[in-house]
Amino acid sequence: MESEFVSRLIGQLPRDRRLEVPPGDDAAVLRPAPNSRPVITVDLLTEGVDFLLAGRGQPGAFPPLATPRQVGHKAVAVSLSDLAAMAALPEAVVVAVALPGRGGRAIAEELTAGVTAITAAQGVTLAGGDTNAWDGPLVISVTALGSVATGRAWRRDTARVGDLIVVTGPVGGSLLGRHLAVQPRCQEALAIARRFVVHAAIDISDGLSLDLTRLTTASGAGGLIDLAAVPVHPDAERLAALQPNAGKTPLDHALGDGEDFELLLAMPAAEAARLVATAPDALVAGTSMRPTIIGQVVATAGLRGRAADGSEQPLAVKGFDHAFD
Amino acid sequence: MESEFVSRLIGQLPRDRRLEVPPGDDAAVLRPAPNSRPVITVDLLTEGVDFLLAGRGQPGAFPPLATPRQVGHKAVAVSLSDLAAMAALPEAVVVAVALPGRGGRAIAEELTAGVTAITAAQGVTLAGGDTNAWDGPLVISVTALGSVATGRAWRRDTARVGDLIVVTGPVGGSLLGRHLAVQPRCQEALAIARRFVVHAAIDISDGLSLDLTRLTTASGAGGLIDLAAVPVHPDAERLAALQPNAGKTPLDHALGDGEDFELLLAMPAAEAARLVATAPDALVAGTSMRPTIIGQVVATAGLRGRAADGSEQPLAVKGFDHAFD
Repeated sequence: MESEFVSRLIGQLPRDRRLEVPPGDDAAVLRPAPNSRPVITVDLLTEGVDFLLAGRGQPGAFPPLATPRQVGHKAVAVSLSDLAAMAALPEAVVVAVALPGRGGRAIAEELTAGVTAITAAQGVTLAGGDTNAWDGPLVISVTALGSVATGRAWRRDTARVGDLIVVTGPVGGSLLGRHLAVQPRCQEALAIARRFVVHAAIDISDGLSLDLTRLTTASGAGGLIDLAAVPVHPDAERLAALQPNAGKTPLDHALGDGEDFELLLAMPAAEAARLVATAPDALVAGTSMRPTIIGQVVATAGLRGRAADGSEQPLAVKGFDHAFD
Repeated sequence: MESEFVSRLIGQLPRDRRLEVPPGDDAAVLRPAPNSRPVITVDLLTEGVDFLLAGRGQPGAFPPLATPRQVGHKAVAVSLSDLAAMAALPEAVVVAVALPGRGGRAIAEELTAGVTAITAAQGVTLAGGDTNAWDGPLVISVTALGSVATGRAWRRDTARVGDLIVVTGPVGGSLLGRHLAVQPRCQEALAIARRFVVHAAIDISDGLSLDLTRLTTASGAGGLIDLAAVPVHPDAERLAALQPNAGKTPLDHALGDGEDFELLLAMPAAEAARLVATAPDALVAGTSMRPTIIGQVVATAGLRGRAADGSEQPLAVKGFDHAFD
C-alpha cells in the first residue's frame, strides 16, 4: 500500500538541514541558499516513450531495456540537467509516480533506490513526492528546485551574434545505453559560471541541432556549425554501423539523436577559447566533460553547416518532438 | 506537435513580475516573497483513478465524467490545497502532462484552459511545464511552490493534547461532483494563520478519519471525534440515498470519502472557539468556509468516536490508499 511504502521510505531518508519541514507533511519547507532565486523545472517520463522497462518488453531489444532503478536515476538526472543549463545550484527534488498496480511494489523499491542514489551523489535532497498506483504503465515526474544568484541564471534567449558555441562533450548514439546513465553537468555548469562569461545556454535533450536552434531562435539569431568540429561519440559510430539501412551517418546521429544531456554554451570568443584551453579536471575533479567549440552565433536566422572545404549549406533541424493531434 | 503547442501557450501567458526568467527556458527563475522559505509539493492525477474523462467513458456514469478543463483545474487545486495546509502563500506551479497521442491536442487545449483559469483566480504563476504524448491515458502532475515565513509553516506533527479539532467546511459525498470543482482553502489558511494560533494542520484529501489519524499519529497523540458535530455535506446524504445497498450512512461518507479538500486544524481551545465565533466573511470576503469544532486531540493513540449519548468507541479509519503489490 501507498501509505506503508511512503512511511517506510521517509523513515529511511537521511536528515537534511536544508529542510525546515521534511517529507511526510503536506509539503516540504526548504532553507535555500542565501541571496538566491529559486529555479524550478519539471520533466515527466513515460514507459514506452522515454524508456522500455525490463521484464515488460523483449530482452535484447534496441533500445536497451531499463531497470526501474535506471528509470529513477534518469528521471532525476534529466531534471537536474535543466538546472545545470541555468547554472543553478541543485537543491531539492520532488518525485511523483504512477505505478502499475501489479508488480508496483518491486518497481517502487528499485525506482526509489535509483532516485536516492543520484540525489545523494548530486547533493540534492528528496523533499517530497506523490505515490500513485493505477492500471497503466509506469510514469514518473520529477520537479527539481535549485537556486541562482539574482540575474546570474544562464538563459537561452541572450546569445549574441559573434558568440562561439561550445558543447561540453561528444554527442550521438545515446540510445545504445547512455540515455539511461545520464550524468547531469551540474557541477560543471557551476564551475564554468564561476570562472567564465556565458551569454546563453541550453542542455541537449532533444538533439544538438534542435536544441541549438531553440537557443539561437530565442536569441533572435541563427547558428553556423563547423561540421568537422562536432565531437561525434563512439556510440554514434556504432549505431550508424548497427543500422546500415537507416541511411544515417555518425554525424547525423550526433546532430539529431538527443538525450546527450551535454550543455550548449554561447560564449564570447575569447572566453570560449579560454574554456577549451582549460583542463577540465581543473574545473571539476574527475569530470568527463570535454568542451569543444563547434560553431558560432550568426545574424542570419536558421541553422547552417560548414563543411571541411568551407562550403556552407542549410542544415535540416532534427530532433525529438512529442506528436499529438 | 509539442513544440508548436508549447510556444503558442507561452505566448499567451501573462507577464508576471514574480518571474525573473519566464517559461520557455530550461527552467524558470522566481522572485519569491522576501524573508520567506520555499514550500514545495507535488500531486499526480491519473485517468481512471482520479478522474474519468468525458468522451472516453460511459456518460451518465457514477462518478461523473470530467472534462479535460476540469482535470486541469483539479490538478492545480489539489496541489494548492497542500500549500494551504502549510499556511503557505501560493506563488507558482509547474505542470507536466502525458497526453494521449490521438485526441491529445484538444485535451491539451482544454486542460490548459483549466490550468490557466485557476492559476489566474488564485494569483499563482504558471512557471513551466513538460508536455509529453504517449499511447496511454491522460496523466497530469502539478508541483506547487509557495512561501512561508521562517518557522511559521503549519505542520502535521505538532498538535498538542487538548487541542480542539476544527474542520473548515462540510464533508462527504464529493464524488457527486465536488471532487472536480475543488476550491483550495489558500486565502482562508493565510487569513487564519494571521489571526489565530494553529498548532497543526492537514487537508482532507483521502478522508477525514484517515487524514485526522495522520495528523494525530504524526503528533504522537490520538483523536476523539464528536460524531454529532461532524458537518455532513448534503452530497453525503444524497450519495447514501443513491446507494442504499452500499450500507453506508451519510456520516460514513463524511468520515471516509475524502476529496473534500477542507482543512483540519488543531488549535488551542480558546483559539478554536474564537475562530468558529468569527464571521467567515470577516476573514475572507465571499468565502464558503464554515469552521466547525468536531473533536479534540487526546493522549491515547488511535481514533475514537463519541456518540450523542456520550458513549465512546474506536472508529474504523477509512479513506483512500493507493494499492500496489
